[in-house]
Amino acid sequence: MSEKKIPYKIYLDEHEMPKQWYNVRADMKHKPAPLLNPGTLAPMTKEELSGVFCEELAKQELDDETAYIDIPEEISKFYKMYRPSPLVRAYCLEEKLQTPAKIYYKFEGNNTSGSHKLNSAIAQAYYAKKQGLKGVTTETGAGQWGTALSMACSYFDLDCKVYMVKVSYEQKPFRREVMRTYGASVTPSPSELTEVGRKILAEHPGTTGSLGCAISEAVEAAVSTEGYRYVLGSVLNQVLLHQSVIGLETKAALDKYGIVPDLIIGCAGGGSNLGGLISPFMGEKLRGEKNYRFIAVEPASCPSFTRGKFAYDFCDTGKVCPLAKMYTLGSGFIPSANHAGGLRYHGMSSTLSQLYDDGLMEARAVEQTAVFEAAEQFARIEGILPAPESSHAIRVAIDEALKCKETGEEKTIVFGLTGTGYFDMVAYENFHNGKMSDYIPTDEDLAPGFASLPKL
Amino acid sequence: MSEKKIPYKIYLDEHEMPKQWYNVRADMKHKPAPLLNPGTLAPMTKEELSGVFCEELAKQELDDETAYIDIPEEISKFYKMYRPSPLVRAYCLEEKLQTPAKIYYKFEGNNTSGSHKLNSAIAQAYYAKKQGLKGVTTETGAGQWGTALSMACSYFDLDCKVYMVKVSYEQKPFRREVMRTYGASVTPSPSELTEVGRKILAEHPGTTGSLGCAISEAVEAAVSTEGYRYVLGSVLNQVLLHQSVIGLETKAALDKYGIVPDLIIGCAGGGSNLGGLISPFMGEKLRGEKNYRFIAVEPASCPSFTRGKFAYDFCDTGKVCPLAKMYTLGSGFIPSANHAGGLRYHGMSSTLSQLYDDGLMEARAVEQTAVFEAAEQFARIEGILPAPESSHAIRVAIDEALKCKETGEEKTIVFGLTGTGYFDMVAYENFHNGKMSDYIPTDEDLAPGFASLPKL
Repeated sequence: MSEKKIPYKIYLDEHEMPKQWYNVRADMKHKPAPLLNPGTLAPMTKEELSGVFCEELAKQELDDETAYIDIPEEISKFYKMYRPSPLVRAYCLEEKLQTPAKIYYKFEGNNTSGSHKLNSAIAQAYYAKKQGLKGVTTETGAGQWGTALSMACSYFDLDCKVYMVKVSYEQKPFRREVMRTYGASVTPSPSELTEVGRKILAEHPGTTGSLGCAISEAVEAAVSTEGYRYVLGSVLNQVLLHQSVIGLETKAALDKYGIVPDLIIGCAGGGSNLGGLISPFMGEKLRGEKNYRFIAVEPASCPSFTRGKFAYDFCDTGKVCPLAKMYTLGSGFIPSANHAGGLRYHGMSSTLSQLYDDGLMEARAVEQTAVFEAAEQFARIEGILPAPESSHAIRVAIDEALKCKETGEEKTIVFGLTGTGYFDMVAYENFHNGKMSDYIPTDEDLAPGFASLPKL
Repeated sequence: MSEKKIPYKIYLDEHEMPKQWYNVRADMKHKPAPLLNPGTLAPMTKEELSGVFCEELAKQELDDETAYIDIPEEISKFYKMYRPSPLVRAYCLEEKLQTPAKIYYKFEGNNTSGSHKLNSAIAQAYYAKKQGLKGVTTETGAGQWGTALSMACSYFDLDCKVYMVKVSYEQKPFRREVMRTYGASVTPSPSELTEVGRKILAEHPGTTGSLGCAISEAVEAAVSTEGYRYVLGSVLNQVLLHQSVIGLETKAALDKYGIVPDLIIGCAGGGSNLGGLISPFMGEKLRGEKNYRFIAVEPASCPSFTRGKFAYDFCDTGKVCPLAKMYTLGSGFIPSANHAGGLRYHGMSSTLSQLYDDGLMEARAVEQTAVFEAAEQFARIEGILPAPESSHAIRVAIDEALKCKETGEEKTIVFGLTGTGYFDMVAYENFHNGKMSDYIPTDEDLAPGFASLPKL
């Protein structure tokens, strides 16, 4: 098909939308290591997981064999309200960069939650409803996940209790009000509502909270309340499964025009977006059908892939959750105040960690100022104001396109634009005022985190 | 075509997008009254208008005869970056309301500016660039127009000077940073940069500014600076012309499925969205081809249509701009702090005013709490968090759908969803906390505005 026929935005028709999620673990020779019970250090069973998660999600979490899992009708119906998301050909950016590269981005920010998080939130809410639960609990830091989950719970008339890190609760009142608009109860963490919250408040009366603490409160609230379960927006296998809808749509749209990407780029915090975007392409690579390059982009201030260790670690700072084998900086690592809150996590999806360890994907760490330069350039040229997280992928996509300009290669680059930056204008303001930090941790800074790794 | 085949979202293909704007004035028997020179009270000539506006825009402003005007290639190219916008069938809302009515909404919030304002901003920036100008000036209150214009100017490498009402500049820092991200200079008004600004500051040292003052500063900055012109985001005929792209796309999408609406609803401040949405349908009505009902929805706190007078009035509080014949509360009317900033304007498009006076459309005033109830209901059911302005239309669409439930009529309702409410969470917060005012001006409150009407 001639180049000229490729529109600015490739939309799939409703009948072309994926009817099944794709589980990349089914095609992996080296499966991701199992979650371990923090007490016994034995692999978590479905029964153990079902105490915390919904049954169907516990099953999905452990299923390394089934390649395709049907998307339930009710979830498909909701997806149709905001999906398919557009795959955009960045003609204007290409022109501005004067690159022979062809750049595409899959835009996941065109729903009210403002990010890709909704893809898994609606699935997790659906299974909770189907199980007859009253509600779910979760934690949120930057607020993207809490927002998405509030929307999803509102749709299924499910109660939603969000523990929001106190400093975010106070500094991001708009995020809080969005969640309230969707009917969620939002509690600043640490709170008086849980035992662990009261304990922390007693020990540290002035604390502004942490994600680790909020997770502990949300888990306690779930397991101690009849009819509730805990849900999580990243890291887990089940989340990558749901997010595969991003990659499946991307692939279907590219296939429609006979386009084969050379390079697929995504930002990586816990891995939900990157894992979803690359899944079906990685499947082809694992089956030996195609070869692609994949690049995970992380902040230089929180470099799990590029400077972390591949080891069993706790998923939370409070060490109450199961252990996962992953690239990690150690649960004792305290990330600096990088503005991309969604990438400020010490660990990484076990699935992506295994793929990275097997040499099937690359990783790159980028500094904050360079990220916001790319973000602003992208906004001015392509019109979409990107989230700081997404802008990590933009940075590397631009860098790779500029390399093509030097070499003359006509590479096809696809990157994930996970969300919009409407709620991140404080970060943009700091960038405009030259108040952005490009902190990179020294080896000494990383040492306490590594020292916190459990000795198994 | 059977009902089942209508998808959630009707997207047009690129080749189905409008190639011309539609000028509803060409089909009006009673043309809108001409703008008058505030000094001579004679109709403004193209030459006079060209001192303030770009030449091509001055021409469009005065053209009551040409029905279709080609959309320049460069503007079409930009439109393709974010258009066509989706026409969404509100299946979930219909189900929740248990109404036999069929509800559609044209969603204009899926671009970074977050509203329909971009449709005219890009056109006005294009004509400024084509004329070889260095830049444009404008004012902004709530910030939607300033944001859209900043994006448009960034695209055409045009300087953009925004005078932002000081109270908004301070209370809406995020809006300000979005404009700065797109490279605009944003000045709190009144400022020391203009004569009128200095004069006002000397007289009222502590003033937090007003839209009328910001307009005066923007106009002064334009006419006193070589290579600059002033641009405006609503009220004017040229703006309604550009915004006709909303209605043309809506009509094309409905035609594709053989759908004929009974009722078309839009919010109305200056009239840019409503005028654009209804234009092609109104054209059919004016030519006697079809009959539709149109409803303009305005805040009860600023009821230009429902309680205003049809008279010549100044478009700005400073009385430096031309006079327009319109439904107006008088330029001396000070609207209350209604949260829908975009609807807080004393006057109304001359074109819409004439159509309303000719009995071709209806108007309805709604109170704020009822508007936010509809907004929250819509957000929870349809997933999109609407702007307060847009929510006025949602309120009446829901009211009309509930009437259908009573009567059993299967009416087809189309409404304009002009934008998202991401930057309006303070208003939502007030709503959640029960701090929303339902102020309706008494006749005494309206008296000073009417007294300010010029005696011609």
